[in-house]
Amino acid sequence: MRRLIVGIDIGGTKSAAVLADMSGEIIKRVSEPTRPSERDSAAVLKRLVEMAREVMEAGNAARDEVMGVGISCGGPLDSKTGVVYSPPNLPGWEATPVKQIVEDALCLPVRVENDANATALAEWRFGAGQGARNVVFLTMGTGIGGGLILDGRLYRGTNDLAGEIGHQTILMSGPLCGCGKRGCLEALASGPAIARLARDSMMYGRHKRVLAIAGGKPADITAAHVVQAAKEGDPFAVQVLEEAATYMGVGIANLIQILNPERVIIGTIAVHAGELVLGPIRRAVEEYAWERSRSVCEIVPAALGDRAQDLAAIALWLEE
Amino acid sequence: MRRLIVGIDIGGTKSAAVLADMSGEIIKRVSEPTRPSERDSAAVLKRLVEMAREVMEAGNAARDEVMGVGISCGGPLDSKTGVVYSPPNLPGWEATPVKQIVEDALCLPVRVENDANATALAEWRFGAGQGARNVVFLTMGTGIGGGLILDGRLYRGTNDLAGEIGHQTILMSGPLCGCGKRGCLEALASGPAIARLARDSMMYGRHKRVLAIAGGKPADITAAHVVQAAKEGDPFAVQVLEEAATYMGVGIANLIQILNPERVIIGTIAVHAGELVLGPIRRAVEEYAWERSRSVCEIVPAALGDRAQDLAAIALWLEE
Repeated sequence: MRRLIVGIDIGGTKSAAVLADMSGEIIKRVSEPTRPSERDSAAVLKRLVEMAREVMEAGNAARDEVMGVGISCGGPLDSKTGVVYSPPNLPGWEATPVKQIVEDALCLPVRVENDANATALAEWRFGAGQGARNVVFLTMGTGIGGGLILDGRLYRGTNDLAGEIGHQTILMSGPLCGCGKRGCLEALASGPAIARLARDSMMYGRHKRVLAIAGGKPADITAAHVVQAAKEGDPFAVQVLEEAATYMGVGIANLIQILNPERVIIGTIAVHAGELVLGPIRRAVEEYAWERSRSVCEIVPAALGDRAQDLAAIALWLEE
Repeated sequence: MRRLIVGIDIGGTKSAAVLADMSGEIIKRVSEPTRPSERDSAAVLKRLVEMAREVMEAGNAARDEVMGVGISCGGPLDSKTGVVYSPPNLPGWEATPVKQIVEDALCLPVRVENDANATALAEWRFGAGQGARNVVFLTMGTGIGGGLILDGRLYRGTNDLAGEIGHQTILMSGPLCGCGKRGCLEALASGPAIARLARDSMMYGRHKRVLAIAGGKPADITAAHVVQAAKEGDPFAVQVLEEAATYMGVGIANLIQILNPERVIIGTIAVHAGELVLGPIRRAVEEYAWERSRSVCEIVPAALGDRAQDLAAIALWLEE
């Protein structure tokens, strides 16, 4: 008898259901755009349940072969009850009992986890975290989130809010963050922060290549444009990335001092930009973390790429 | 049959051996000054072994009643092998196999832990951390150290360096820390940092009460003098404490964002100064941590006082 897992990834723009085995091999997969604009969690969940049934049927999965369903979703949420509280990317999901709804519909046990934690588990089991016991996983995209694997287990914190790495304070009087606080790492080193830094420098006239890539409109500049210009060797773009990455390095140095991990895994922009971002991060870590702590800690890019979302939902059933 | 524990606390100025039961009740205790000036770890350990034998004899402890020996000691050290690497307060202890030496001498199993971790365990079992599952313990004295209880277990990190809370960066271009880095929390909020801040403000002539308490010599000003003057209502002293405590609050807010604890316990100066320090800490936490995270987290002074050192060594045998 096979041992299978159904994974459901509820993203802001795209949702997917997969059928996989315990090794993370994806047997069947369906995916379609999420329509959060409908603001109707019941309809979205009904469709996800159908998608889950589709992959189970397509994969000829007998009910007793499926150990359970893993759902990766934006937080805040309660991983014990499986209630999801209005994630920024799913407006209108006020206290939705996702676990209960899907369990009732599929008659299978369901685990719900926020996407940063789920992706941390996936990178740990299948990606850049393999073999390590203490892993810090960070996203570096629209936001800076994170997940902590400590002593070989996911650490969730008291009410599922551990790992909010992007909202540590790096500059006490720094720029306002989307969260309402000042000087958060996310306000200094996320994709939007990189884009803003590039745009704000326009008045100094040092942004020509970035602006050209962005199609000539300053308001359209994104972090992706900055990364592209930096890869072409544009000194201004390189400098913008270096500044953001230095803040990122300070934040990572703090994590190294506090958590003494053996691996720090950075996703998204660090993967796309490679050494243009990882280099300044490592130099800042050298300055702001102890040799004795950083010498046992590797700083590496995330390894799973496009597979991360699928494997995140699967990984919830591999824990322990 | 009783179940007893021998605890040994190796301090920089004072060492103690205690015999206790599983409830933390101290049955016998001997204590004497440490003489690290001898720089002879063998002699110090020989004397500690004698002290351990003394408390066992005085308490009529049969060998099979004693579960083990707990040793609390300054780090860095390796808790697995029990080797201690030259702690700042025990100069000359280069790679001393403390666990092995004491095990061989007493024929009892020995656990060695750094004092911050051991005290965190003690506060969790017997003090201000009772009943909580996720606890951050911080000292606020000569240094700012810490210990982390996460998911109901001591979290040590990859090479026993987790919880170096005092060496997170609060001000990237801040004052030089004793550790060699810049802008560490310890350089901004420890006892010596408070004393330095008071001394450095002398040129503005706003230090009279503190200076009087210190006996008129600026170089003699300590954090204890600042706390005393603040308790008397001296506005300058109150302001110095408030500045240090604000940095402390930012550091604690970072811990709350990263670890989502349910209790933060602060020792030493926070205990002596009470609300003069805890008040500004709580205000900074309110500014720099999310409501959702801080609402589940109590910030409290340490509860064990003078009993902390004895119970720290005992607590090593109560884990799990």
